[in-house]
Amino acid sequence: MKTLAAFAALALISTGFAQEVAPEAPKYADLAAFQESSGYAIFTANNIWMMVATALVFVMHLGFATLESGLTQSKNTVNILFKNTLIPCIGLLTYAVCGFNLMYPGADYAGGWFGFAGFGVSAGNEVANLTDVYNAGYTYWTDFLFQGMFAATAATIVSGAVAERMKLSAFLVFSSLFVAIAYPITGMWKWGNGWLNNLETPFYDFAGSTLVHSVGGWGALAGVLLLGPRLGKYSNGKVRPILGHSMPLATIGVFLLWLGWFGFNGGSVLSANPALTSLVLVTTSLAAAAGGLGAALTSWVVLKKPDLSMALNGILAGLVGITAGADQMAAMSAIIIGLISGVLVVFSVIFFDKLKIDDPVGALSVHLVCGIFGTLAVGIFGNLAGGAQLMSQLTGIVAIGVFTFVFAYVVFLVLKLTMGIRVSAEEEIEGLDLGEHGNEAYPDFTPAHKS
Amino acid sequence: MKTLAAFAALALISTGFAQEVAPEAPKYADLAAFQESSGYAIFTANNIWMMVATALVFVMHLGFATLESGLTQSKNTVNILFKNTLIPCIGLLTYAVCGFNLMYPGADYAGGWFGFAGFGVSAGNEVANLTDVYNAGYTYWTDFLFQGMFAATAATIVSGAVAERMKLSAFLVFSSLFVAIAYPITGMWKWGNGWLNNLETPFYDFAGSTLVHSVGGWGALAGVLLLGPRLGKYSNGKVRPILGHSMPLATIGVFLLWLGWFGFNGGSVLSANPALTSLVLVTTSLAAAAGGLGAALTSWVVLKKPDLSMALNGILAGLVGITAGADQMAAMSAIIIGLISGVLVVFSVIFFDKLKIDDPVGALSVHLVCGIFGTLAVGIFGNLAGGAQLMSQLTGIVAIGVFTFVFAYVVFLVLKLTMGIRVSAEEEIEGLDLGEHGNEAYPDFTPAHKS
Amino acid sequence: MKTLAAFAALALISTGFAQEVAPEAPKYADLAAFQESSGYAIFTANNIWMMVATALVFVMHLGFATLESGLTQSKNTVNILFKNTLIPCIGLLTYAVCGFNLMYPGADYAGGWFGFAGFGVSAGNEVANLTDVYNAGYTYWTDFLFQGMFAATAATIVSGAVAERMKLSAFLVFSSLFVAIAYPITGMWKWGNGWLNNLETPFYDFAGSTLVHSVGGWGALAGVLLLGPRLGKYSNGKVRPILGHSMPLATIGVFLLWLGWFGFNGGSVLSANPALTSLVLVTTSLAAAAGGLGAALTSWVVLKKPDLSMALNGILAGLVGITAGADQMAAMSAIIIGLISGVLVVFSVIFFDKLKIDDPVGALSVHLVCGIFGTLAVGIFGNLAGGAQLMSQLTGIVAIGVFTFVFAYVVFLVLKLTMGIRVSAEEEIEGLDLGEHGNEAYPDFTPAHKS
Repeated sequence: MKTLAAFAALALISTGFAQEVAPEAPKYADLAAFQESSGYAIFTANNIWMMVATALVFVMHLGFATLESGLTQSKNTVNILFKNTLIPCIGLLTYAVCGFNLMYPGADYAGGWFGFAGFGVSAGNEVANLTDVYNAGYTYWTDFLFQGMFAATAATIVSGAVAERMKLSAFLVFSSLFVAIAYPITGMWKWGNGWLNNLETPFYDFAGSTLVHSVGGWGALAGVLLLGPRLGKYSNGKVRPILGHSMPLATIGVFLLWLGWFGFNGGSVLSANPALTSLVLVTTSLAAAAGGLGAALTSWVVLKKPDLSMALNGILAGLVGITAGADQMAAMSAIIIGLISGVLVVFSVIFFDKLKIDDPVGALSVHLVCGIFGTLAVGIFGNLAGGAQLMSQLTGIVAIGVFTFVFAYVVFLVLKLTMGIRVSAEEEIEGLDLGEHGNEAYPDFTPAHKS
Repeated sequence: MKTLAAFAALALISTGFAQEVAPEAPKYADLAAFQESSGYAIFTANNIWMMVATALVFVMHLGFATLESGLTQSKNTVNILFKNTLIPCIGLLTYAVCGFNLMYPGADYAGGWFGFAGFGVSAGNEVANLTDVYNAGYTYWTDFLFQGMFAATAATIVSGAVAERMKLSAFLVFSSLFVAIAYPITGMWKWGNGWLNNLETPFYDFAGSTLVHSVGGWGALAGVLLLGPRLGKYSNGKVRPILGHSMPLATIGVFLLWLGWFGFNGGSVLSANPALTSLVLVTTSLAAAAGGLGAALTSWVVLKKPDLSMALNGILAGLVGITAGADQMAAMSAIIIGLISGVLVVFSVIFFDKLKIDDPVGALSVHLVCGIFGTLAVGIFGNLAGGAQLMSQLTGIVAIGVFTFVFAYVVFLVLKLTMGIRVSAEEEIEGLDLGEHGNEAYPDFTPAHKS
Repeated sequence: MKTLAAFAALALISTGFAQEVAPEAPKYADLAAFQESSGYAIFTANNIWMMVATALVFVMHLGFATLESGLTQSKNTVNILFKNTLIPCIGLLTYAVCGFNLMYPGADYAGGWFGFAGFGVSAGNEVANLTDVYNAGYTYWTDFLFQGMFAATAATIVSGAVAERMKLSAFLVFSSLFVAIAYPITGMWKWGNGWLNNLETPFYDFAGSTLVHSVGGWGALAGVLLLGPRLGKYSNGKVRPILGHSMPLATIGVFLLWLGWFGFNGGSVLSANPALTSLVLVTTSLAAAAGGLGAALTSWVVLKKPDLSMALNGILAGLVGITAGADQMAAMSAIIIGLISGVLVVFSVIFFDKLKIDDPVGALSVHLVCGIFGTLAVGIFGNLAGGAQLMSQLTGIVAIGVFTFVFAYVVFLVLKLTMGIRVSAEEEIEGLDLGEHGNEAYPDFTPAHKS
């Protein structure tokens, strides 16, 4: 009930940013002038592409929900689905309350490390607001929604890694703070024109290998370390595989994530610029394809048989790997980055198990390891390759990693010491669906009067 | 076989509207002139956005199919899927035959209550047709397809409420009549420039909280009342929960519906106007998020544990609630409307069970209750708030409700007295999949050689 | 391991097309001039629509994955998913290596039968490349990606037909060669301006009833003939149905394929031309609807009960049927073509079983039979109807059919004589998931503590 009170407060805050007023009807006089101008058609086209991209990033939340539930046991499925359903809800609401204004504070910040443009979002339908300072090419509202959908993906990454043993209430508190505060602050360092964007050789992260994926990965690592592995995962020096319950769900998830990446990377052009959007979609898809093939072949060699879940994670690895430099690579470079990511993810999954770091869905390998690799790759391949760039990439990776890991570790630790972060052993064995929700995922499922 | 004959007749009519001829090749002379004009780029952009919106509304049919089958028992899954597969087929075909011309009769109607522009759809590729009187900003064909996809959603809403006990043949006859006749007539009252659009303070329903969702809800209510509850649902004054068979399917459904609503509401702007489309996507998503959070918290308090199906229905409740005024609300108003809808849906589900009105998927609570609330909300929040508006909203809700409920009740009653609307008790117990289709949903499903 | 070596070689080639260099940063001087021009807004709009279409065609791969796995047994699900995951990966990579340049060789080919523009894809961000010779209205990169997504669908069609008994390694080798060589060569005959495009009355195939669907169908037929039926399918002169394991998955697949066809056909306009794209979406959707209704009614009459899998295949049949002439039909013609396709598919499924040609998912009936019918329909209905056109359609069907069937038969035969194409009887009985992958599809699936 403590959690409930906290959320009720959050809900109240969500609705309480008082400076907001209902937008007036469009001022057609102004709009008419703008609509006559030669820039209006391109502005409209940009806005269409960004809305499409926003919808595609939204699809990623369904991708994560199906991927994570597919790769975990059916006794924890309702819990996974519930978390992944609430995360975009909480993510969008907190982004409206404070996240957006932390991430894009305008000129109003100290030293490029922190700034805040005030609670709440507000913009009328006036032309002045349509051409917002951050995105001269489309509307303020599209900007907010695209970035809000983005923000929530960082929290979703954590969800998979801590699955099957974390308390729901603690997870919801953690992810609210993570998406409302931690993600926007480090995001501002680069995308809000903060200090990383103002290095002599600016740190480069096109669509978030570091700002989104490794951020999610660091949060996940903190959680996993403080939670410990699932019961029975590591015993007598052996790794016991705890398999998922539905490979079709997992496969649906990966395809939807690939689809969503059309918007995640394609939308990060922040316009419908034909040269850049098209190139980005090509590098993104070729890296995904190479990652899938690379991981499939690697698993075939290493594990003797071609493993579906490795192929799936290989696609995601390729996607995460290309994300930092998707607009700066030739096709061949994208394929190489994807292949390396696909190989990397297989060994990384094995490596984390060696360390007894239990990550049910491979989120650390995909998002943290390949997020770091992809960020470094910007300094190794493509238009920006070079020593100075590589140093800037390292600077960004380390700075954002340290901040995010420390933030997440402290929050998880405080939660562990207060409300607790792990369910009881009984509940873990019985499943979190009954324990946390009193629901089951497949209550009336009666397959097959099999002949 | 009687049904078959009826459908064969329908199919013949579908193909028989004889005034149609193959469109001639585009008259490039005319098109060239249009393409040189300054309006052509915006016309093209509008048309792209409307085609995207059409595709997204189509996705809603998959959303309903998965949501409804997830929330019902696996012995009735084929039946649900079959209905939801046929509904968009029948909906599009009947809309081509007569629905579109009932809903948008042009100037050719009596008193704003009824009009008909003739059987069939037809338009060449000429410029004259590209700039149709109803939608000066995009093509006649896009207009038809967008509206046709819309129309079919009203019938889908009924499908869920009457699930697990209604005869397939009767359902198909009902939904054909519902989507071909009832929906377009009340739709015309507002969107076809009928009497509700010509009140002194015009009734306002941006994208169909009333015209689509409560219409579906009223149809559902008529069906549920005449069918009665499923066997064993209410006995000895107790409510026995009959749980669904797959929460992953239900979750997929809700995410797809949210995605589809980007097109349902975003496309209802009827252009790519950047100011309006962007605002509408924001209010829509914030209301969905607030609805999900509101219902999750409410269920946590009322049912003691956070319930996934309530959170899912809360998202839908928020979406239905914002639909009537999505273009007239500020962000805060959208959040408030979503939150109220989310709370409302939980109590409404409990309330209908108290009344022994058995609605397996919560369609009445989501679409009827929140559809009405959302329509009233236009008179309470946002740009149009005011007493006169509230009265017009009430007028529209009541007029459309009475017409639709009476229409649906009479059709269901006639079907009940002739072909029957409810399967036998034996079939209901065995499941409609075997009874109606001779199929099973999971015939060769053999999970787990579990270790 | 032989397979592995082959794939390693392929992977090396993929990354080895050495003429590629990282694209330079956009030459803003040139771009600025282009962006000032009156054509830039339309160019941008075209490019947006083609990128959306590309994303939708990508969705078809998920559609095939879910459809095929739904219609087959759960012991072979991982195998199906693995194939359908790798196919778009291999398809995109081989298309980058050679497919694209085989299919669109430019002026550089002999007699319209074969040409090759060299290994690899490469284009800078320069304006010159943005306005590629093949597609003056959008970018080279979008062209490549759209066509690459298309190419991979042809291989996917084969996957379903050979399911539940074909060796994974042999399938991957076959589909690599099929998509890298066979598909682009016949594709060039028409779309690369080859000899079929230069007949006196040019062969017409708008979006690939023949070039994609019947090509996939011929490949499937060759495979099915050389593989033979699944164990126990035909015994003592009887047909034993081997049912699928999840009708929800199959239904999801068909809806996603319909959705994807918005891009498959809508994108085949190769611009955002409002007149053509809108008409194409309408004919496509009406044919799908009529196909679904036609097959449902036909199954109701022939099989006595309405069969879900027939309704689903009917939708696909209607979609394949309209594909060749989607831009040349009036609404009524589209409905008629869809209806005929829907009826055809039911009898075709029964017919192939009579011939003891075992096709687990109905791919031959949908893609080969309705692909041929749809191609002929261009000469029977719509703008191009006429005897000369019908002869050209026949010419194209036969020429492409002979080439593709012979190519596929030879490849399958060589594979059969070398590495083998069929798994052992023990493996087939146990399931390919354990045999080929050592994975199961539902390892930790524990439905229902059923009350």
